[in-house]
Amino acid sequence: MAVSEPLRKNVTPVRVIALGGGTQIERADTLATEEPMEIRAHGPGQEAVRVAVTMRTPGGDFELAVGFLFTEGLIRPGAVHQVAYCEDVDTVEQRYNVVTVALSEPFDDTVLHRNFFATSSCGVCGKAALEDVEVRCAPIPLGFTVPMETVLGLPDRLRSSQRVFERTGGLHAAGLFAADGELESVREDVGRHNAIDKVIGERLLAGAIPLLERVVQVSGRVSFEIVQKAAVARIPVVSAVGAPSSLAVEAADRLGVTVLGFVRDGRCNVYTHPARVI
Amino acid sequence: MAVSEPLRKNVTPVRVIALGGGTQIERADTLATEEPMEIRAHGPGQEAVRVAVTMRTPGGDFELAVGFLFTEGLIRPGAVHQVAYCEDVDTVEQRYNVVTVALSEPFDDTVLHRNFFATSSCGVCGKAALEDVEVRCAPIPLGFTVPMETVLGLPDRLRSSQRVFERTGGLHAAGLFAADGELESVREDVGRHNAIDKVIGERLLAGAIPLLERVVQVSGRVSFEIVQKAAVARIPVVSAVGAPSSLAVEAADRLGVTVLGFVRDGRCNVYTHPARVI
Repeated sequence: MAVSEPLRKNVTPVRVIALGGGTQIERADTLATEEPMEIRAHGPGQEAVRVAVTMRTPGGDFELAVGFLFTEGLIRPGAVHQVAYCEDVDTVEQRYNVVTVALSEPFDDTVLHRNFFATSSCGVCGKAALEDVEVRCAPIPLGFTVPMETVLGLPDRLRSSQRVFERTGGLHAAGLFAADGELESVREDVGRHNAIDKVIGERLLAGAIPLLERVVQVSGRVSFEIVQKAAVARIPVVSAVGAPSSLAVEAADRLGVTVLGFVRDGRCNVYTHPARVI
Repeated sequence: MAVSEPLRKNVTPVRVIALGGGTQIERADTLATEEPMEIRAHGPGQEAVRVAVTMRTPGGDFELAVGFLFTEGLIRPGAVHQVAYCEDVDTVEQRYNVVTVALSEPFDDTVLHRNFFATSSCGVCGKAALEDVEVRCAPIPLGFTVPMETVLGLPDRLRSSQRVFERTGGLHAAGLFAADGELESVREDVGRHNAIDKVIGERLLAGAIPLLERVVQVSGRVSFEIVQKAAVARIPVVSAVGAPSSLAVEAADRLGVTVLGFVRDGRCNVYTHPARVI
């Protein structure tokens, strides 16, 4: 499967007035680009259906599309046949904001009409959300371990590979690391869920799913969805500079994911499955 | 209109292993609670329709529901008749995760089927997203001003009123301030968009919309959606500790919103409509 993507501007130049210390200076600055992107999917002979619209930073669009579809449980990684921008749009501006994923098997769009968190009646709750993920993936077995020294060095390694953040100060990042701290993949985005979807999508397009024996380091906090995405891709350790939420920890406990939070200043908190940190 | 909401736990106790400095200590900790919430709406005699499911921190659920519906352009503020938890659910756990907003006029659910960013054909782009908001709200006129000294003090004022953050380190916040820096409303949530929806929803339920002559301070970055929500509620100034995105600045420029970023250490950047900062 061949995919190619044009170079997109992930930063946007602006003029800004910097105030402070009694001075007022007008100068040039760069911002992280944010643009909506629509994700579509279809099987052989099917018409493409709109799956989602997400606000994202251009770059890694194909990775984001397949990563999102995969981590949300909508496609199997082996079923991706082709990824392309939509031709059927009005303007050049829109040209690169619609990504269509063609599958080698039928796309079951009935899953779009069920709500992920919904139970048989009208209710939603964290328990139902967890059960929904559990149906799709078994807990990740123990076995893989990572030295604590490696983990404590990941935030700096991630930051030093964030090229767009350096220029804008305005992006989330996710990085995939081996147990020895070697960086395998890093992606940035205005949305923290997009950053991890891009990393997983990049690996998917490289044929490297499942992502066994890896640590994913994220720049922000750990939500339920971050843990869900890691679990679906079989990443056993999620490490974060910020705090996890209650549902993230509950999900990680049940799905066999080790969650590390507040990884900073030579310290960290282990919330689940501590046996993986040695 | 009377609304009342039961006390919900916005923090969740956990056991955590704190590693670092050669020590390993197991201790109690608290996490920000994250639970899905479904938002429904209906007019007189209509059946309630599911509008959205959002991951949120319990507390301010009714505010979140009406704030979301209002800032997304789905309801008029004066049309809220009653807000209640859904009775028709399976379990106690679900009891407080479905909020129904009853309107005094018909709810137009066709808006749910159009995509906010979609143009007439299949395309999406930032320009179309902007135009969609512009149809619903005219630019905010200049006139209101805020002293720079006030702005520079807002991050500390916001942080000192974040009760849950203090205990968990894991929440976004939004605070509504007057020009003299007086705090009018503050809300916290695991989602940054939820925090501002709660603040606006709280003011809506108090009958205080439009929110003229106010500054909204947010704990994170400024996305397109944050600017959109401020513009719909007529808040003229958005101030943030972090960076804005490109589309946030473009939207603010066109919708008459002043955006301040990197408000920290006695300095800030003004991205749009600097005349409001004196």
